[in-house]
Amino acid sequence: MIQNKETLLELLETRRYSTFIKAVDELNPVDAAEFLAELPEDKLPVVFRMLKKDTAAEIFAEFEPDVQEKLITAMTDKEIGGIVEELFVDDAVDMLEEMPASVVNTILKNAKPETRAEINRFLSYPEDSAGSVMTSEFIDLKKDMTTTQAIERIRKIGLDKETIYVAYVTDKSRVLEGVVPLKALLFAKPDDKIGDLMNRDVIFAYTHDDQETVANLISHYDILALPIVDKEKRLVGIVTVDDALDVLETEATEDMQKMAAVLPNEKPYLKTGVFATWRQRIPWLLLLMVSATFTSTIIQGYEQAITSIHLAILTAFIPMLMDTGGNAGGQTSVTVIRGLSLGEIQLKDYFRVVWKELRVAVLCGGTIAIATFLKVMTIDFRWALSYEGKSTLIISLVVAMTIFCAIIFAKLVGASLPILAKRLKLDPAVMASPFITTIVDTVTLIIYFTIASRFFQFP
Amino acid sequence: MIQNKETLLELLETRRYSTFIKAVDELNPVDAAEFLAELPEDKLPVVFRMLKKDTAAEIFAEFEPDVQEKLITAMTDKEIGGIVEELFVDDAVDMLEEMPASVVNTILKNAKPETRAEINRFLSYPEDSAGSVMTSEFIDLKKDMTTTQAIERIRKIGLDKETIYVAYVTDKSRVLEGVVPLKALLFAKPDDKIGDLMNRDVIFAYTHDDQETVANLISHYDILALPIVDKEKRLVGIVTVDDALDVLETEATEDMQKMAAVLPNEKPYLKTGVFATWRQRIPWLLLLMVSATFTSTIIQGYEQAITSIHLAILTAFIPMLMDTGGNAGGQTSVTVIRGLSLGEIQLKDYFRVVWKELRVAVLCGGTIAIATFLKVMTIDFRWALSYEGKSTLIISLVVAMTIFCAIIFAKLVGASLPILAKRLKLDPAVMASPFITTIVDTVTLIIYFTIASRFFQFP
Repeated sequence: MIQNKETLLELLETRRYSTFIKAVDELNPVDAAEFLAELPEDKLPVVFRMLKKDTAAEIFAEFEPDVQEKLITAMTDKEIGGIVEELFVDDAVDMLEEMPASVVNTILKNAKPETRAEINRFLSYPEDSAGSVMTSEFIDLKKDMTTTQAIERIRKIGLDKETIYVAYVTDKSRVLEGVVPLKALLFAKPDDKIGDLMNRDVIFAYTHDDQETVANLISHYDILALPIVDKEKRLVGIVTVDDALDVLETEATEDMQKMAAVLPNEKPYLKTGVFATWRQRIPWLLLLMVSATFTSTIIQGYEQAITSIHLAILTAFIPMLMDTGGNAGGQTSVTVIRGLSLGEIQLKDYFRVVWKELRVAVLCGGTIAIATFLKVMTIDFRWALSYEGKSTLIISLVVAMTIFCAIIFAKLVGASLPILAKRLKLDPAVMASPFITTIVDTVTLIIYFTIASRFFQFP
Repeated sequence: MIQNKETLLELLETRRYSTFIKAVDELNPVDAAEFLAELPEDKLPVVFRMLKKDTAAEIFAEFEPDVQEKLITAMTDKEIGGIVEELFVDDAVDMLEEMPASVVNTILKNAKPETRAEINRFLSYPEDSAGSVMTSEFIDLKKDMTTTQAIERIRKIGLDKETIYVAYVTDKSRVLEGVVPLKALLFAKPDDKIGDLMNRDVIFAYTHDDQETVANLISHYDILALPIVDKEKRLVGIVTVDDALDVLETEATEDMQKMAAVLPNEKPYLKTGVFATWRQRIPWLLLLMVSATFTSTIIQGYEQAITSIHLAILTAFIPMLMDTGGNAGGQTSVTVIRGLSLGEIQLKDYFRVVWKELRVAVLCGGTIAIATFLKVMTIDFRWALSYEGKSTLIISLVVAMTIFCAIIFAKLVGASLPILAKRLKLDPAVMASPFITTIVDTVTLIIYFTIASRFFQFP
């Protein structure tokens, strides 16, 4: 929380650089990055160069990709090399994933061969996999170390590690054997062996696991970091809880975007351009618009079968029926999608979910049908609509029966499609309201006109 | 991750209790709680009694409220007292918030007077405030301590603390002065003073701040714990990152539920009964159903003004127009709601958001209008619809113009209502798709028939 932005700017303007650098150094890196990013474009590289090397790397990791790119372009090869070596591997990989190819080449060219090899290995993991979000800066211990030796090792290698609060025990082929929190070391006797202190029941994930699985494990077990292993169970990295927070926020945002028929985008709203936003939104809008063709065809098909005096009044209820069906389906699909993504619902729960939704649908459908019947009979036919025919009772019944069936259908579809999508390894979130609305609309109209045409057909 | 559930059950059935208890003791408390909760109801209290006191408390904190209640009812007063003293205050408060009044009384009666006073103080914080999720088990240090003294103090009082990895420095009136991560202590010299090591730029929150604010701060600054202070800036508790994870997950779920017109509920989906689910869903369904009355009235109002041959064909496009308007509005409202809840959009950004949405709306509206015009002219009038009139061009134009206006309107409403809600201190998430769909439907129909009646009015 920056308290003294004006003071900082004044220091800079009056060229009291050493005081300024000291003040920036004391800021939280997140705040410092936010503050520096707002400086005029020509000032930023100058100021950034004056920072201490490790502070500079910490702040650099917090910049948005566009600022990082500007700085890289303004740096000498040597400076770039310095920054890349100081960054945590996962931060370096995050940055490279956002840069244009030419900048990526400049950066990799200036990294040390080992760093370059490691970055390339991380870049080769599939997007959104555990491998792509992990970092290789963790503390590893051996079983035969004593507490004192372990603490010494942490003191020696810990300064550059992403976390020193959890250490991992590996055998000589680097296979993960156990986990020791720093707390246990602090409360142990100096001669206690790591092999006795360590917890063998390690929660871990594989490099190819989805990042959401990793974040859910960290959240479920309330742990500070999750070790990531390769197929041979060799420890290759860790994902820390702060990364899990980011993953869960990003995944929740993406799910919401998909639920609202928007293509996902990781950039903050106000930083996304108008054209980019348009590209996120237009595909689903177009697809849903075109698929609504069915509804037009259905309405037209029945228009010729129903006498026009009844058709006119039946038409008036179409929006209400469609909206209610869509809302009922959306309620269920969003609930099921969220349950699937939190792991509360598994594929094997399919029948439990459908059976539950069927009962909820009967309750909701029954309530709404009765309410609709009463509303149509009283409010609509007395005040809202001017209808001269004598079929008020039948019309009210038809509308109520339709809404009952529509809700049952909507809730069953809303429960089934997300689970089916998951089964087919698609993203359940795509099966949310807008998609289901289109299906439910079509079926609701068919139900409506099928019931209505029993009563109001041409003789 | 339990590997050997069968072995554990066998140990229990063959009454090899001491081996069984040792095995449970080695499990992760989260797994142990899941395993024990599945035991037959009469077995659970017996087994639970045999556990070591601190293991028992750790596992107890992980149980669902219904299991906790069952256990409490089966325990003696002394046992209850033992458990309550071992629990972290925030876990005890979480539990009490879910228990019926009679159980709460039994528990408080059996707690020590100090514990009871503290629990009561925590219970008095507003629901979902920082005070209600914090815990008072933190490490506090003084400025004039040396590193060695500080580490000694952590060793002495740290065992029962929620985290020992961050310590807080307070003055003699308990006012928060600084923060020291354990890492800094580990790398400091034995005689370094805490006052020199500590970071004075502390990120903190007040007890009455919203829990979402707290979680967003922890996520924004990537910190392990956030200190919570009272109005006089005295340190009263901390919120740890694992609690922040829970808060962010719960808040995201609640937002999604509200966006889908479901009343929020913290219970997992499969643990919520059919009636409870019905109660979550029926209020909005009813409200939205009743508010759709407007659309019926509008359709009826115009039916009398438009010649019936044109009315029939115009009606066929109503579902498509309504769906597309609703989808366009939903895209914007969900994006804006999520931006508000992540803090990416502030109230002061209102005009920027509206200006951006206006431009996106013109782009989306334009694209969809052209696509609609072409689709209606070609697909619909050639194949899908059987229309004998000669006004195909005019009808296609009317539909395309309507969809253009509807999208502009939908996106402006979708951007404005969530920000307005936030302004009025309501929850923006309530202003999502279903609510906006109802408004957009009504206005879309008015636009449609206003344009149409210019062309197809009775002479």
